[in-house]
Amino acid sequence: MAIILDGKKLREKIFEDLILKVEKMPVKPTLAVILAGDDPSSKIYVNNKRKCAQKLGINSMVFEYPSDVSQSEILKKIDELNDDKNINAILVQLPLPEHIDKFKVIDRILPSKDVDGLTTYNSGKLFSGEEPFVYPCTPKGICLLLDEYKINPAGKHVVVIGRSNLVGKPVAQMMLRRDATVTICHSKTENLAEITKTADILISAVGKNVVGEKNIKLNSVVIDVGIFKDLSGSIRGDVEFDEISNKASYISPVPGGVGPMTIASLMLNTVELYNKQHDL
Amino acid sequence: MAIILDGKKLREKIFEDLILKVEKMPVKPTLAVILAGDDPSSKIYVNNKRKCAQKLGINSMVFEYPSDVSQSEILKKIDELNDDKNINAILVQLPLPEHIDKFKVIDRILPSKDVDGLTTYNSGKLFSGEEPFVYPCTPKGICLLLDEYKINPAGKHVVVIGRSNLVGKPVAQMMLRRDATVTICHSKTENLAEITKTADILISAVGKNVVGEKNIKLNSVVIDVGIFKDLSGSIRGDVEFDEISNKASYISPVPGGVGPMTIASLMLNTVELYNKQHDL
Repeated sequence: MAIILDGKKLREKIFEDLILKVEKMPVKPTLAVILAGDDPSSKIYVNNKRKCAQKLGINSMVFEYPSDVSQSEILKKIDELNDDKNINAILVQLPLPEHIDKFKVIDRILPSKDVDGLTTYNSGKLFSGEEPFVYPCTPKGICLLLDEYKINPAGKHVVVIGRSNLVGKPVAQMMLRRDATVTICHSKTENLAEITKTADILISAVGKNVVGEKNIKLNSVVIDVGIFKDLSGSIRGDVEFDEISNKASYISPVPGGVGPMTIASLMLNTVELYNKQHDL
Repeated sequence: MAIILDGKKLREKIFEDLILKVEKMPVKPTLAVILAGDDPSSKIYVNNKRKCAQKLGINSMVFEYPSDVSQSEILKKIDELNDDKNINAILVQLPLPEHIDKFKVIDRILPSKDVDGLTTYNSGKLFSGEEPFVYPCTPKGICLLLDEYKINPAGKHVVVIGRSNLVGKPVAQMMLRRDATVTICHSKTENLAEITKTADILISAVGKNVVGEKNIKLNSVVIDVGIFKDLSGSIRGDVEFDEISNKASYISPVPGGVGPMTIASLMLNTVELYNKQHDL
């Protein structure tokens, strides 16, 4: 039976540590979140982030805009937040309404306040193997989870399914930096199962049911980043958990695996940015 | 017998076209090259670039420094070149002397004059799937060569050996953008041959003899980016050309494959930067 990569437990451990650290800070770090539009999932995510911050003693501010907000209004708000010394971290909740250029909006954030690590500057640093201000939250969470269970990707074959800027591409880069051999698969990949079956560590970030018993190697580590509602309305991931739980050596569940680690990374990043801004 | 991917021939075709284009330009594009230290290969490369530019009617200037030049002197020169409207493209010849921080030096170049596409800004754009000002020269050359022979990487498995910022990482990104499934191998990869044997397109950028008949799949495309002198002093690549020429479908020779394409890309990039600076 595979060992469960328990993101919820690790998140609590990280939070306990952060609470003590934040307690000692004379001024508390502040995270600003921009939320545009009516996407119900986005509202839930932002609310969770707000509640988490509160629990840790981190200040948070949420700036909400209707779905017809102009791009220039959002850019103006980002400029204000960039200039405000009391704001340490800025997050733009994605997706943005379609008429808004997300690259332009994200790139308006000062790299030193870019808590998601998604600006061109921080992406470029990550890609070049230099230190970005912070690493993107979900890939960072995956690395922390692997570290916690002492799973070292060096020399191993890591296969990533998905090539998004949020997960697939940065996690591939971070695994490469940890000396893994890395393969990136996606919707255009021919013979997906043939490739995933060669993975020592399989990271699936698709949002569709793509990984079953046939797709994995015996004793591999399987990280499920996908999260969606199936036809019956229950929350599930990319991976057929029951099917593979006797074949994999480690597996991250959905919910309770990568999800909690993403929010833990967001909180860690907020504190890290604060510390870098104050030369701590 | 494999078809030869003739980089020399394609370079001449590109040059013929560029000569006509440059001829029509009222002001000629100018490429500035910074060369620090006494590396004999670097001197040859820079001289080749200078001669190529001359042949095409592109102005070139070479700024030479002794190996004990200070970092601040090089940064000062880059600032001057950045400010000079007559300079369209800036290249820092690598490697730099060891006491100099190459990341800092390269990042001093304005992204709009960064002819090698290596600044954090241009790397970040490449990584995010947006348009950098220009693409790095060697990866761009490889793509042009594949295009010329109508080899489409979409859906194919591309295996890259090498993870440098100059070749391995950017070419992997560019192949991913062209819908290839991409694997990056390197010195820490276990079972290299097992992975390379699954490649439809194999790109080797190591500078050591690593690819023989046993490492490739029947009818695959093999791109040899390595170039070094063997014990007998002859120029050779990563690939055992004779061994695989009956097994591969296409193969790029060394010399005469990727090398000429790199310099062709440099000239294309110089003209592209000029055009972007003049909104052409």
